Amino acid sequence: MERSFIEVRPDSHFPIQNLPYGVFRPRSGGPARIGVAIGDYVLDLSVLEDAGHFNATALAGTGVFGKHSLNEFMALGRPAWRAAREQVRRLLSADAPTLRDNTALRDAALLPQSDVELLLPAQIGDYTDFYASKDHATNVGIMFRGKENALMPNWVHLPVGYHGRASSVVVSGTDVRRPLGQMKPPDAAAPMFGPCRQLDFELELGWFIGPGNELGQPVQIEHAEEQIFGLVLVNDWSARDIQAWEYQPLGPFLAKNFATSISPWVVPLDALEPFRVTGPAQDPEPLPYLKQPGKGAFDIHLEVYLESDRMVKPQIICASNVRHLYWSMAQQIAHHSIGGCNLRPGDLMASGTISGPDKDSRGCLLELTWRGTEPIRLDNEEERVWLEDGDRVTMTGWCQGEGYRIGFGEVTGRVLPAQPSGAVK
Amino acid sequence: MERSFIEVRPDSHFPIQNLPYGVFRPRSGGPARIGVAIGDYVLDLSVLEDAGHFNATALAGTGVFGKHSLNEFMALGRPAWRAAREQVRRLLSADAPTLRDNTALRDAALLPQSDVELLLPAQIGDYTDFYASKDHATNVGIMFRGKENALMPNWVHLPVGYHGRASSVVVSGTDVRRPLGQMKPPDAAAPMFGPCRQLDFELELGWFIGPGNELGQPVQIEHAEEQIFGLVLVNDWSARDIQAWEYQPLGPFLAKNFATSISPWVVPLDALEPFRVTGPAQDPEPLPYLKQPGKGAFDIHLEVYLESDRMVKPQIICASNVRHLYWSMAQQIAHHSIGGCNLRPGDLMASGTISGPDKDSRGCLLELTWRGTEPIRLDNEEERVWLEDGDRVTMTGWCQGEGYRIGFGEVTGRVLPAQPSGAVK
Repeated sequence: MERSFIEVRPDSHFPIQNLPYGVFRPRSGGPARIGVAIGDYVLDLSVLEDAGHFNATALAGTGVFGKHSLNEFMALGRPAWRAAREQVRRLLSADAPTLRDNTALRDAALLPQSDVELLLPAQIGDYTDFYASKDHATNVGIMFRGKENALMPNWVHLPVGYHGRASSVVVSGTDVRRPLGQMKPPDAAAPMFGPCRQLDFELELGWFIGPGNELGQPVQIEHAEEQIFGLVLVNDWSARDIQAWEYQPLGPFLAKNFATSISPWVVPLDALEPFRVTGPAQDPEPLPYLKQPGKGAFDIHLEVYLESDRMVKPQIICASNVRHLYWSMAQQIAHHSIGGCNLRPGDLMASGTISGPDKDSRGCLLELTWRGTEPIRLDNEEERVWLEDGDRVTMTGWCQGEGYRIGFGEVTGRVLPAQPSGAVK
Repeated sequence: MERSFIEVRPDSHFPIQNLPYGVFRPRSGGPARIGVAIGDYVLDLSVLEDAGHFNATALAGTGVFGKHSLNEFMALGRPAWRAAREQVRRLLSADAPTLRDNTALRDAALLPQSDVELLLPAQIGDYTDFYASKDHATNVGIMFRGKENALMPNWVHLPVGYHGRASSVVVSGTDVRRPLGQMKPPDAAAPMFGPCRQLDFELELGWFIGPGNELGQPVQIEHAEEQIFGLVLVNDWSARDIQAWEYQPLGPFLAKNFATSISPWVVPLDALEPFRVTGPAQDPEPLPYLKQPGKGAFDIHLEVYLESDRMVKPQIICASNVRHLYWSMAQQIAHHSIGGCNLRPGDLMASGTISGPDKDSRGCLLELTWRGTEPIRLDNEEERVWLEDGDRVTMTGWCQGEGYRIGFGEVTGRVLPAQPSGAVK
C-alpha cells in the first residue's frame, strides 16, 4: 500500500490515496489559497506552485493554486486534475525525496490543519438539489400522500430536481440561524408568522462541476462523469412547516434557502474509483439519454450525529450509504443538461436526502421521527422531534479500504435561535 | 421639460429622464465597459470616469464604470446611484457646456447604439422567479385544477416564488434553442423523449438587487426598495409539456432552465418614480412583514410581438401592464429574505408572467390560446398555439410621460430548432 512520509493514522480521512482539495487561509494571516489534506496537515499547493513544482505538468503557468477558489482549477478538466493529483502524490510519497528531504520547503508548504481556516471551496454559480433516493422519496410520499401514491409517476423516469440558492451555501462550522417565516398549522384558519418550529437537516452528497458545457449542448451520459471535479457532504437544512405551506405549486423556496452547509474538502472522483459499485436496479429501464454504461454508484458510508447543548458528546442518529441512491451522479448531470442548460465550473449539485431501507438509515428528522410521531430519545434523556436551538448536527462519511479510509471529513453546524420576530416586525 | 443636447425623439425610450445603465463593447473593439443610453447613443461612462468627471461625486476612485459588469456599481447603494445619475444628467443637459461643447470628449464618449454590442448587464449570482400576477395564477389554476381551486390557499398570503437558473440568463438578441426533454402526453402509457412541443414565452418584469443583505438578516419591507438597482424586461421561456411532467413535487426545472432572456438596459428605479401607482387591493391583509407603506406598483405599459419567419413584420399579440401585479417588488424582496436568505449585488428577481384582466393582456401563449384550445390567427393567415421554429418573440415596455417615454428598449429572441435527438442519443 502506498504511503506518505507524513504519518497518517489508519482511521484518518486523509491518506495519500485521498488528497482532497480545499481553500484555506492560514490563521497567522495571508490570502486564501488552495491546499490538499494529508493526515493532520494541509499541503499548501500555492507554495509548491510558486517553487516550480507544477512546471513539468499540464498546470504549468496557470497559477490556479494561488486563487481564492477552486473554480479555475475545476475549469481545466480531468487531464489537468489527473496531472495535478499525480504530482501531489509523487511529492507526498514516502519514497520521494523532493519534499520529504527539503526542510525549508516542508516548513513552508505543510501546515497543521488546526492552524488554518477552511473556506468555501468554490464560488458557486448555481446550486441544484435532486431527490435521488427512492427510500427517501417513498417515505416522504407515504407521509404526505399515503402508501398508494407514495412515488409520483415521474419519479422512476427522471431524476427529479430543483434549483436551490447559491448565495446561502456556507462552509462547515458556520452557525445556522433558525429562519422566521410563514406557516399554517393544519387546524389554523390563517397562516401565522414566527420562528420555524420544524427545523430539520438533510443528509446529502454534493459534487462540484468541472469544465461545464455550452448553452444548448447537452452533456451526454457517457461523458457526464468527466464533469465531476469532486464530492462533498451536504446538509440541506430544511424548515418543514414553512415548506408545507409554501411549496405548492412551484416547489421549496424559503424552506431551504436560509442555509445549506457543505464540507470543506472536495474529494476527487479518482480517489473514489476503488469504491465504485453497481447501483440499485432501475425498473423501468431509463430512456436512452439516462442509460449509464458501467457502474455509477459509490460505496460511501455516511453518519449523522446530533449534540444538544446539554450533551457531553455527539450521538449518532443515522447511518446511511451513498450506494442507496437510485439515480447516479452521471444520470443527474445528463438529465440536468438534456434541455440545453449550461453547467459552469464551480456549480454545485446535490443528491437530495440519502435514506436507506433501514429505519436508522433515514437521512432526516422528518423520516427518522416519522413526521414527529416517533421522537428520538437521546442518551441524556432528552427527546427530539425537530432540531432545537443550540443543537449541533455533524455529518461525516468515508469509503473503507484495506487499511485506509477515503474520508470526507465532516460538515457541522449549530442552530442559533431565530431573530426576535419583533426585530423584523 | 428637461432636455439633452443630444436629440431625442418623443417616442424614444431613452430621453434624459431615463438614463438606463448597460454593459457594452464597441464593435470596433476594446473591452466591455459601462454606458448609459441617451436617444440613439450610448454614453461611455468609463471615458467620463477616466477623464475625471466623477471625481467630485461619491464614486470618486471607485473605477466602477470600467468594469465588465454592473455588479460593483450595484453594490454601492442608492446614494452612490443618485450621485452618478445626477452627474450624468448634468453632463447630458442641453444647458451644460462641459460635454456639449467639448468635441473631443463627445467624440470619445458618445457612440451610436448601432456601433456597440450590448452584453449581459451583470454577473447574476442567483435568479429568482416569482408568480406575482393574480390574473396569471388564476388563469393557470383554472386550466389545471378547475375554477373552484384556481388559486392555491397560500397564494394570497405570500408571494410564491422559486429559484431559477442563473447560468442560462441571456441578453436580448440571443437565439434560443428548443429544448429536448421528457414529456408524457395524457394518453401515453410511458413518457417519451424528444423536442419540446409546447414552447412558450412569459412576459415578466425583472429587477437587479443592489447592496444586498447579510445571511440571517432579513430586509425589512420599509427598506426593500433601497435594494432595487433597476429594472429590465424578462422573457422566461417555458416548455409546457416538459413542465407538466416534471414539476411535481419540487417545481419547474428543465422546463425553464434552458434560457431566460433579459433586456440589456437597466432602468433605474428613480426614473420610474413619476409612474408609481397604487397596486391592486390586497385582501386578506398581508402579514406585517409584507405590509408596504405607500404605493408599491408602477404603471409600465408592456407589449409582446410575434414574428414568424414567413412574416414581413412583427405582430402584437399581447398588451399588458406592470400595475396588474398583485405583489409589489418590495413585498417580493421582503418575503425572499424573511427567513434570512442573503441577496447579493447582481442577483436577478422576476415577477412571473404579467397578465391583466383582459384576454389580450395575458402574458403567455398558455393563457392566450387557453392551453391550445384557442389558436392565435396571425396577419399572414398562419396560426399559433405554441411557438414554432424560426419564431421571434419581442417584448417591449415603457412609461408614458408628458412628451417623453421612460422605455425599456426590448428583449427579443428567435427560436432555433432542437438538436437532432440522435445527436444526444
